[in-house]
Amino acid sequence: MESFRCDYAEGCAPQILEALQKSNMEQTDGYGCDDHCYHAAKLIKERFACQNADVHFLVGGTQCNQIVISSFLRPWQSVIACQTGHINVHETGAIESLGHKVCTAVSDNGKLNPQLIQQVLQEHESEHMVVPAMVYISNTTEVGTVYTLAELQAISGFCRKNGLLLYLDGARIGSALCSDACDIQPEDYAKYCDAFYIGGTKNGALFGEAVVLVNDVLKPNFRHMIKQQGALLAKGRLLGIQFEELFKDDLFFKLAEHENKMAAMLAQGLQKLGVTFLFPAQSNQLFISLPQQVANQMATTYGFEWWGPKQNGMAGLRLVTSFATPSQRVQAFLNDLKILLQAK
Amino acid sequence: MESFRCDYAEGCAPQILEALQKSNMEQTDGYGCDDHCYHAAKLIKERFACQNADVHFLVGGTQCNQIVISSFLRPWQSVIACQTGHINVHETGAIESLGHKVCTAVSDNGKLNPQLIQQVLQEHESEHMVVPAMVYISNTTEVGTVYTLAELQAISGFCRKNGLLLYLDGARIGSALCSDACDIQPEDYAKYCDAFYIGGTKNGALFGEAVVLVNDVLKPNFRHMIKQQGALLAKGRLLGIQFEELFKDDLFFKLAEHENKMAAMLAQGLQKLGVTFLFPAQSNQLFISLPQQVANQMATTYGFEWWGPKQNGMAGLRLVTSFATPSQRVQAFLNDLKILLQAK
Amino acid sequence: MESFRCDYAEGCAPQILEALQKSNMEQTDGYGCDDHCYHAAKLIKERFACQNADVHFLVGGTQCNQIVISSFLRPWQSVIACQTGHINVHETGAIESLGHKVCTAVSDNGKLNPQLIQQVLQEHESEHMVVPAMVYISNTTEVGTVYTLAELQAISGFCRKNGLLLYLDGARIGSALCSDACDIQPEDYAKYCDAFYIGGTKNGALFGEAVVLVNDVLKPNFRHMIKQQGALLAKGRLLGIQFEELFKDDLFFKLAEHENKMAAMLAQGLQKLGVTFLFPAQSNQLFISLPQQVANQMATTYGFEWWGPKQNGMAGLRLVTSFATPSQRVQAFLNDLKILLQAK
Amino acid sequence: MESFRCDYAEGCAPQILEALQKSNMEQTDGYGCDDHCYHAAKLIKERFACQNADVHFLVGGTQCNQIVISSFLRPWQSVIACQTGHINVHETGAIESLGHKVCTAVSDNGKLNPQLIQQVLQEHESEHMVVPAMVYISNTTEVGTVYTLAELQAISGFCRKNGLLLYLDGARIGSALCSDACDIQPEDYAKYCDAFYIGGTKNGALFGEAVVLVNDVLKPNFRHMIKQQGALLAKGRLLGIQFEELFKDDLFFKLAEHENKMAAMLAQGLQKLGVTFLFPAQSNQLFISLPQQVANQMATTYGFEWWGPKQNGMAGLRLVTSFATPSQRVQAFLNDLKILLQAK
Repeated sequence: MESFRCDYAEGCAPQILEALQKSNMEQTDGYGCDDHCYHAAKLIKERFACQNADVHFLVGGTQCNQIVISSFLRPWQSVIACQTGHINVHETGAIESLGHKVCTAVSDNGKLNPQLIQQVLQEHESEHMVVPAMVYISNTTEVGTVYTLAELQAISGFCRKNGLLLYLDGARIGSALCSDACDIQPEDYAKYCDAFYIGGTKNGALFGEAVVLVNDVLKPNFRHMIKQQGALLAKGRLLGIQFEELFKDDLFFKLAEHENKMAAMLAQGLQKLGVTFLFPAQSNQLFISLPQQVANQMATTYGFEWWGPKQNGMAGLRLVTSFATPSQRVQAFLNDLKILLQAK
Repeated sequence: MESFRCDYAEGCAPQILEALQKSNMEQTDGYGCDDHCYHAAKLIKERFACQNADVHFLVGGTQCNQIVISSFLRPWQSVIACQTGHINVHETGAIESLGHKVCTAVSDNGKLNPQLIQQVLQEHESEHMVVPAMVYISNTTEVGTVYTLAELQAISGFCRKNGLLLYLDGARIGSALCSDACDIQPEDYAKYCDAFYIGGTKNGALFGEAVVLVNDVLKPNFRHMIKQQGALLAKGRLLGIQFEELFKDDLFFKLAEHENKMAAMLAQGLQKLGVTFLFPAQSNQLFISLPQQVANQMATTYGFEWWGPKQNGMAGLRLVTSFATPSQRVQAFLNDLKILLQAK
Repeated sequence: MESFRCDYAEGCAPQILEALQKSNMEQTDGYGCDDHCYHAAKLIKERFACQNADVHFLVGGTQCNQIVISSFLRPWQSVIACQTGHINVHETGAIESLGHKVCTAVSDNGKLNPQLIQQVLQEHESEHMVVPAMVYISNTTEVGTVYTLAELQAISGFCRKNGLLLYLDGARIGSALCSDACDIQPEDYAKYCDAFYIGGTKNGALFGEAVVLVNDVLKPNFRHMIKQQGALLAKGRLLGIQFEELFKDDLFFKLAEHENKMAAMLAQGLQKLGVTFLFPAQSNQLFISLPQQVANQMATTYGFEWWGPKQNGMAGLRLVTSFATPSQRVQAFLNDLKILLQAK
Repeated sequence: MESFRCDYAEGCAPQILEALQKSNMEQTDGYGCDDHCYHAAKLIKERFACQNADVHFLVGGTQCNQIVISSFLRPWQSVIACQTGHINVHETGAIESLGHKVCTAVSDNGKLNPQLIQQVLQEHESEHMVVPAMVYISNTTEVGTVYTLAELQAISGFCRKNGLLLYLDGARIGSALCSDACDIQPEDYAKYCDAFYIGGTKNGALFGEAVVLVNDVLKPNFRHMIKQQGALLAKGRLLGIQFEELFKDDLFFKLAEHENKMAAMLAQGLQKLGVTFLFPAQSNQLFISLPQQVANQMATTYGFEWWGPKQNGMAGLRLVTSFATPSQRVQAFLNDLKILLQAK
């Protein structure tokens, strides 16, 4: 089975394993208080041009979202997200489990904008309702689209004007940074967001995400929250070592470039085959529609996620490329699909 | 600096890194639904003689405690722990953060017993009070002591008679299993507890703990809780691969034996030097008292945790050995201490 | 100012004040463990034909919803509600504050049905999502409509088939019981719901709601939850005394009949004036649309709630009658409105 | 049965019922936004000399404690209380249910002091532990003792120096204000506490407590929290009307004086009989020790709470007087006890 199911189907970039090997018998203090973590944080603050930010390394994305959001919100406050937002759909109620409502806006491309946010604010003007106090966006989004710089600026401006914190889920920020459709530079994330995280798990690390706290009011006691939510890794250095490798020589960007390149190759091939795209192909996640029968047959050889309800003989599919996807796998998929579509 | 600060100061047993290297480019499904995890679970169920148990792999100990305890308790229920219990002291209120009170009993050796538990029950007989519904014990305990089989049986019997669940924190279960003072066999944990976890982080893994759910009522929807609390590792196979190695050829036990052997060597040396022990030396954690001045000087060369308040010119120290502690480090510590004590 | 703002604008039925006066110097035990509460519970169990139910008296409706829902759900479970449901909109995140997501279905008349519930279930089939485990409906609904017996039976049947608990918010169950459009009898609530509450606050009590737990699995430790959530009234007898009065001679029904009668008179008058109704006029809450200017002028003399966004020169209004609404107030409102509409 | 079980065994002061009667058919807005509430708040701010405070009316004491404490604490913060504190023992884990640990100090008279608080702070100096951020004290205490002004000042000074909020539970502040042993004046509560509540339930109201928020940082969005926790009374005016009566002509103080006078009469009589007091007799709660047999016989005629474990043939009793306790009941109790003690 060749898998396009996700970008965490393989282990990690070889450089990371080598670094783990090399440092294995060093003795360090626990809980991220070691030189690898300090160095990795320094590299990130330089690359994202935010010298005054605090950087914390966590293990996974849901963990980041849960801890960041519940740290910053007071009990009566809520977070605004797209209806397709990861925190609204795919985190088993993690945000609610720590007491906060997710207020949703319906968008057809996975992206929020000031109008959508404004509408949520207007619906929450009484003390019988929660107080929206934070906006959650993802880049790339959960449907593979990307924000432009102008879009990010518009949201950021609206948030600042309305006293809302802006938090960006960067589980796939690598793919966004290297997307042709996305003109947001690393320093823009620090400039326009109050906090964001840089996803390692989906971009070639064994695991690990780097939370970047830009706004000073968010910084105090964040490590207490990490510990309280069971997320303070004993051998914290494992995260430092990995992010050192990812940001030492721009490995992070090289890995993302590869996954985007493979996705682009796949997208072009699919377009040639006349396949319908459910969302614009802008990053390493592609969403397409295939005849149900064809899709079923592809599923016997290739791993992928089904997307949405099956109807009118058609089925939705999500295809994801990773740092480790070989071009041969892409070509094989396209070839096999071509044969099936022609036979139809 | 040579560190006896903790048993998570180094990376991992070399076999684990090799296994990660070897499997690195395999493609697997995420979230622990892969053959490595299935195989590791099988090995654990065999070794602990609990074929019907559910095994879940998590990243850290606080995570295990928080998820297990909050999964099993209803909102009005509490967990009983020793005042020195990890969940009461060192988890930044993780249990309370999900809504549950920790009811404590004061013990002078880190261990609970039926009398102590009974006392807590008697103090909670009204609907104006929480309902204690679970007992939390650790083996080894937070002060390095171990339970005997008779002690475990007594607690287990009391719990079953009184409708209390028994949960054992096995962050250092490796050291307990290999302690001369502890006659509890692997199968006893499954026999006498409703749930327990097997600590990898403090016994030679990069990270990872295996939660074993023995009691059927605890099994449903546990993965939902893992996900909700941000603890479902995307590349779950990393946990499976590590526990496969640990339990394939009893590596887990060999690592623990080494750390206990180093601790025993250290304890014997300390006893010869006439050093006072704050708790019996039964595992890989030793708690001793040294003249404040001597301790301060040792601290310039060796890493360790201070323990308790400094008073009457004396200071408490915690010394911990690990799978990676060389005997030379132990000898060097003893030699240096001897010189300082004699000079005094 | 003559108010149609809500059905809790006045004090209480005179019989209730008399009963409080009469019993004032009696000494009773606290927390609802007194003969008035026992007697009131007995009357309710008889009237709703549920001898085996547990009846608990609470102070307010949000309190009932929060305690009932969080008592019955496990941490990973959610409750399904209409998007207009009180728990989703008007309780400042009370359900989420205790850890549970509210999964919503969009309905145009404030009512759920099996199809809408089924759709929510289908969207929640993975362990990365919460598990819907309870259905929340209100009768009368938040938009003044009522369920028919057939509708209640359909939902109840679907819930039982799908392992969902059914909980009914009866804040205005009095108005529902006396609505011509609603053929549900008292005993049907106990027959088709797992739990429901009988609203006193909005039907002539000073305050107070009676939670009826029909399903045995919901009964244990409910008083612990009441106490934990700060809802165990010290002088619990105040609730018992009020519900004794309400159910001694069917006062509860007489009060509801009056408020429905006043609402019907108001609805008929409005219809004669050609006013548009936003929802069917079926209970003591009426939702109408008026020219913005007319509405503004009416607002100088009469109290009411604005409903929804103002657009196209029209404004939405909610008018509510109560046990204490005099027919003169209804007539005056109609007369004044007639003049304004004619002048336009 | 003549009851000394609690100070909420009777209804309310007759003036309150009259006021409810008189205002019954007035129409007001809901949720405490009415003139009675505004007027009552004004009276309280004048009487306690805190013109800039916010006053909120809630139904019960546990509700006040839960809402105040969870509003003010951030997730990683805890509250320090005496081990006998109401929030630690008798609220079924209300504080923990909203995520916060209660850190306790052991005191033998129900009172905290700077030394006890300091000790808790010293034990919480790592990020693996919660951060104590608030101090909770009760006056009168749960064992009937009272703070002196000097004691309150000492705690307040320590709190301000150490960045701790000071919150005072005034469930029985009436009895404290009128206690000969307590020299704290109304204005001192506002001067030395960040927040406190004035208990109506246990001092002659049907129900109701007035939360006074003195510190500006505690004021925003408090009504959101009240609503979220199900505590925003629909007919909020009921609270306003009661507190208007209580503070219009110092009725609050007159009621407390009576209950203290009855307690003093009882205490003097008990002392004459040579009865042992478990705590100093300083307010309307008395704690005594009687021979088990005598206590059992008294229990056939008089209601009271048992206190603590029965041992060595002795039993602990709590006797409470209220605004409605007649002196004849006190005399009868003393006479009956005298006979039993002499017969022994």
